Amino acid sequence: MLNGVKINIKLILRFIGFLLIVEGFFMFLGIPFSLYYCGNNCNSLLISGLITSFSGLILLLLTRKNYNKNIGKREGYIIVTFSWIIISLFGTLPFLISGAIPDFTNAFFETISGFTTTGASILNDIESLPKGILFWRSITHWIGGMGIIVLSIAILPVLGIGGMQLYTAEMPGPAPDKLHPRITQTAKRLWGIYIILTFVETGLLLLGNMSLFDALCHAFGTMATGGFSTQNSSIAGYSPYIQYVIIVFMIFAGTNFTLHYLALHGKLKKVWQNEEFRYYVYLIFLVSIIITISLIILSNESFERAIRESLFQVISIVTTTGYVTANYLGWPGLLWMIIFLLMFVGGCAGSTGGGIKILRQLLLFKNSGMELKRLIHPKAIIPVKYNRKTVPQDIIFKIMAFFLIYIIIFAFGTFVMSLLGLDFETAIGSTVATLGNIGPGIGNVGPEGNYANIPEFGKWFLSFLMLLGRLELFTVLILLSPAFWRK
Amino acid sequence: MLNGVKINIKLILRFIGFLLIVEGFFMFLGIPFSLYYCGNNCNSLLISGLITSFSGLILLLLTRKNYNKNIGKREGYIIVTFSWIIISLFGTLPFLISGAIPDFTNAFFETISGFTTTGASILNDIESLPKGILFWRSITHWIGGMGIIVLSIAILPVLGIGGMQLYTAEMPGPAPDKLHPRITQTAKRLWGIYIILTFVETGLLLLGNMSLFDALCHAFGTMATGGFSTQNSSIAGYSPYIQYVIIVFMIFAGTNFTLHYLALHGKLKKVWQNEEFRYYVYLIFLVSIIITISLIILSNESFERAIRESLFQVISIVTTTGYVTANYLGWPGLLWMIIFLLMFVGGCAGSTGGGIKILRQLLLFKNSGMELKRLIHPKAIIPVKYNRKTVPQDIIFKIMAFFLIYIIIFAFGTFVMSLLGLDFETAIGSTVATLGNIGPGIGNVGPEGNYANIPEFGKWFLSFLMLLGRLELFTVLILLSPAFWRK
Repeated sequence: MLNGVKINIKLILRFIGFLLIVEGFFMFLGIPFSLYYCGNNCNSLLISGLITSFSGLILLLLTRKNYNKNIGKREGYIIVTFSWIIISLFGTLPFLISGAIPDFTNAFFETISGFTTTGASILNDIESLPKGILFWRSITHWIGGMGIIVLSIAILPVLGIGGMQLYTAEMPGPAPDKLHPRITQTAKRLWGIYIILTFVETGLLLLGNMSLFDALCHAFGTMATGGFSTQNSSIAGYSPYIQYVIIVFMIFAGTNFTLHYLALHGKLKKVWQNEEFRYYVYLIFLVSIIITISLIILSNESFERAIRESLFQVISIVTTTGYVTANYLGWPGLLWMIIFLLMFVGGCAGSTGGGIKILRQLLLFKNSGMELKRLIHPKAIIPVKYNRKTVPQDIIFKIMAFFLIYIIIFAFGTFVMSLLGLDFETAIGSTVATLGNIGPGIGNVGPEGNYANIPEFGKWFLSFLMLLGRLELFTVLILLSPAFWRK
Repeated sequence: MLNGVKINIKLILRFIGFLLIVEGFFMFLGIPFSLYYCGNNCNSLLISGLITSFSGLILLLLTRKNYNKNIGKREGYIIVTFSWIIISLFGTLPFLISGAIPDFTNAFFETISGFTTTGASILNDIESLPKGILFWRSITHWIGGMGIIVLSIAILPVLGIGGMQLYTAEMPGPAPDKLHPRITQTAKRLWGIYIILTFVETGLLLLGNMSLFDALCHAFGTMATGGFSTQNSSIAGYSPYIQYVIIVFMIFAGTNFTLHYLALHGKLKKVWQNEEFRYYVYLIFLVSIIITISLIILSNESFERAIRESLFQVISIVTTTGYVTANYLGWPGLLWMIIFLLMFVGGCAGSTGGGIKILRQLLLFKNSGMELKRLIHPKAIIPVKYNRKTVPQDIIFKIMAFFLIYIIIFAFGTFVMSLLGLDFETAIGSTVATLGNIGPGIGNVGPEGNYANIPEFGKWFLSFLMLLGRLELFTVLILLSPAFWRK
């Protein structure tokens, strides 16, 4: 009982307990690398894993009696937000225990940046960290990505957030009335695809002479659209082959995962019929061509390098991955402005990408055009169509509300970061790059900078923005609304 | 007949002819000042006025036969947009003929900046211009303001643009079904208020030892929320008394003019019951207090000066006037960031102020809060209330579409200005300050800069943004839509 509203706290705690056990298990996964490359502190992952799993176990034991299996929307919201916060809190343990990141604020920033698949880092010298810790750092992305797939495809549509119920209608699976088996089955299928793609990418990176360690870490960072690298120079030091592999898999990671499911079942025509996917592909290639030509003319780059760098940077930003092969802030005049605007785009709905999302922008653009038509013919009913079906007005309404709140938070965030004394570009850049779960922004947090020098309060605030952006705003904001806690 | 749609071109031409005759008359108004202060070229206003009136007369004569008095929405859109363009074209004549601004691009920029009540200037040395020409420059604001009052209170609500039909319900006047007499009567009443306020301000400025010439010019610039001054230092060189007078009248100019009507009829309680007005007053005073305290602490300014400068700058930007008493870009850290964010606010609906407008933002904020409640209670109907009445969902929808298109144009504008080689802050600043009809922005077009060094194409593009912002986006955009020209 909390101010009159009954919340099934036991079930929430059980769920989080279960998650912590899983998190502990993932910490153990890095131990082989800790041992193989062992310098000092090589048992910090073991200790962290034990603490985390044990905490989870205690939670499960404490709540094992008389719990109610009924789970409502309220519990859904609480579970989603607190899962990300609590696994991020425990996720700091390897950094703190190994001493790789001794400061708690920095460790939390790095961890939530991992779990939200942002990839914003406070580390000045990544390569100096023990390999086991770097493995944990990269695997936080991968775990986050798994969470996002379930969240965006199975949970958010049910909660009705930001118009995300729109594409569930086209989702493969049993009849929509059977909710529970549907969620479980969908999650399993899409996780299968996520795991397969991760291992295929790892294999292709190994073929390019990457070590197993680097290949796994970069595959985790790619498929989760995260962006943590094991190298100080991100992807810039790797061969063109490696860069092309990552380009292709970033595109995959930014695609709606239900389309991968369709593609694997040979329904390629249906994939191409998907308007969001087409828009996503057209956008990427159109912008890349513009940047390629500009780089060739203005910077005298070779054709191959220009096309590779522009493709890589455009895709990395649109999918909100944040890997870097070129310092786009050093590009001539307007080119980095294009990159900046792309930071508002985001991946496809139902991908691991963050940001506003292609689907929402597509519908908002369509609706803007329709709005003009509606002014000309005020009595006619002029609906927005998506994939040849009429989109209900209330979904457009929800999408517009989402966009509006996104922009308000962006403006507010920029303001807060200015308040902390950051210059204009860094304030804007750090806000858009964390809210959009990208990682590198503009100003001092650009591709050659990092978040080390952001003031302490700023790091907590940006951590909050990462969470807000990752959980599609409403999931977090609703918990701050007094109405949520009233009956 | 234009591609199948029948447009009453004769009536449109007659209307524009009539406007040109009025415009010519306003040009003559500056002649006394031309003669009194005469240096050289003192008959340029006379010549310009004759050309303009004569052109209008010819249009009236050419269309006097067989014209149809029926006017539809299509004609309404065309008349509004083309009126502003054509009076701006003829409005360049005094600048060109006198040689005060010999370049056509610059003259057009300055004139449309006047008629759209923006106040962005390309002049480096305002004081070197002949007084008659400066009078014309200031009166373009005042004419623009008259146009805006009719447009926003009588025409846009009828056209149903951007949710502006909302406050017409509370407008004084005859029954809403009698449209034509209502528009005429409303326009006359509100123009009466506009004229009275202008002359009261002129009188108060005269009491502060301003010359009649300066008093009139600054009263025109204030009441139209324009911002052209006759001094290079804008209002900074005038006495505190003068500055306080302008502060008060900027507040009046940014208020919905129907509230002035109510106030003049003693219904002050009803004025204060208006939610938009309360929000406007609270916002101005809250932000001014924050800036005052910061200026006292951080810049060691005296209390009176701090409060005067912060009130002046906050009100000047919120009302989109653009007069300057302090270089806000020189203020410590975040204070100019606050001013920058205020550039998106805009005056009240139904005022002469530009920008997004207080009313829209208020409703968008309210709706965002309601959206969270709707997620918690998805089956309940939770409407937005304004002035204790339920706001129809489709009005909120239109307002969201307006906001969205505003942001898209802002992003696109910033991109175009970057493309022309402007730095980030100047690109953002010039876009927001012209689209919002403010005048001074940030970067090189800040309070101590001007638009002289913007590339030629940029001046035409910014002129377009001024028109777009002034006419509430849709009025102009709809003319670019192919559907508008189809049957």
